[in-house]
Formats: sequence, C-alpha cells, structure tokens
Amino acid sequence: MTFPTNGLDDTVHQRHRLGILTIAAEADRVEVAYLRDALELTPGNLSRHLDVLNQAGLVEIEKGYDGRRPKTWIRITPQGQAALAAELDALRALLRRLQAEPG
Amino acid sequence: MTFPTNGLDDTVHQRHRLGILTIAAEADRVEVAYLRDALELTPGNLSRHLDVLNQAGLVEIEKGYDGRRPKTWIRITPQGQAALAAELDALRALLRRLQAEPG
Repeated sequence: MTFPTNGLDDTVHQRHRLGILTIAAEADRVEVAYLRDALELTPGNLSRHLDVLNQAGLVEIEKGYDGRRPKTWIRITPQGQAALAAELDALRALLRRLQAEPG
Repeated sequence: MTFPTNGLDDTVHQRHRLGILTIAAEADRVEVAYLRDALELTPGNLSRHLDVLNQAGLVEIEKGYDGRRPKTWIRITPQGQAALAAELDALRALLRRLQAEPG
C-alpha cells in the first residue's frame, strides 16, 4: 500500500485551491467576491488559483451581471468533484493512519 | 470563524512534507532512506524538503554510522509535533464541515 500523501495532487492539495473547491462543492455556483472574503485572498492571488483550477478542468468560470454590476461566479465540474473526493479520501486515510498509532 | 484552509501552513501542508512529518511522528527517529522509499521521492527532492523542515525547526537531522555505512536520520522536534497537530486539526475541521453538508 502506498503512503497516503503520495496520492495527493498538488492542483487540489494546495491550501487555497482546496478551500476554493470545498466551498464550490457546497453550492451550485459561488461568487468570486465571496471566495475572496472567505479565503482571505487578494484578487490577483485568487485569480491565479482559479486559473490553475480552470485549466485543469476542475472549475468553470461564468461572467455575468447582477443588475448593472459585472460579477464572476465559479462552478465546480464533475471532474472537480471527483478530484476533491480523491483528495478527501487521501486525507481521511492519513488521519486514520495516525489514529491507529499507539500514543 | 475563519475557513479551515486559511489556518494551514504551507511548510507543513505541502504533501511530501506532510508525509515526512507524519512518518517522523510515528517513531523516535527515521532513516532518510526509509522516507525516500515510503514517499517515492528522489534523494534531491527529499533533501530539499528536509532542508525546509529543518530550517523551520520542525525536524532535526542526525548523521552517523550503521557499522561502516554512513546513514542519516531525522527526528521530529516538539515544534514539529505541534505544527503537525495544528495541520491535522485544520484537516479534521475541513472534513467535518463537508460531512455536515446535506448531500
């Protein structure tokens, strides 16, 4: 059996991207401004992480308007759901391993 | 309450370093060759991650001999134990958050 952290994918495991995917998995779509506040990221930093996730096919980016104000939303893709599920399985395996140790 | 991933420290969260600290927490000291095999890392890659952890005060590096063969061991420090515990607490909080969601 391979060690649990070997199965982690940096695209998903990086802490801000893990945060983005976790929040996106909880709703149909999430406004980018909400993510920025929740994850305490600068617009540039969030934008870079969204690009990585988008290019990996894990989120879709949707631009539109709320009244006259331009807004951006993101939506997790089925591939993103699967990648997040695999990450969480690996984290659970790691935590189980530590709980199984004496002391 | 801040989002669980905001509390993660990249020094500990990076997947290979998380693997190193997890294995080191399970034993008094761990031979570097064992880590390399368990985590499927090249010597150079492992060495870079050990330097990061050592410079952060999270592991100590010990050089010695096993008979005539030079060997290197690492040992997690109390600071490393605390940093790993904080990381695992944040991961548990993230997993709890997702479990609490309907669906």
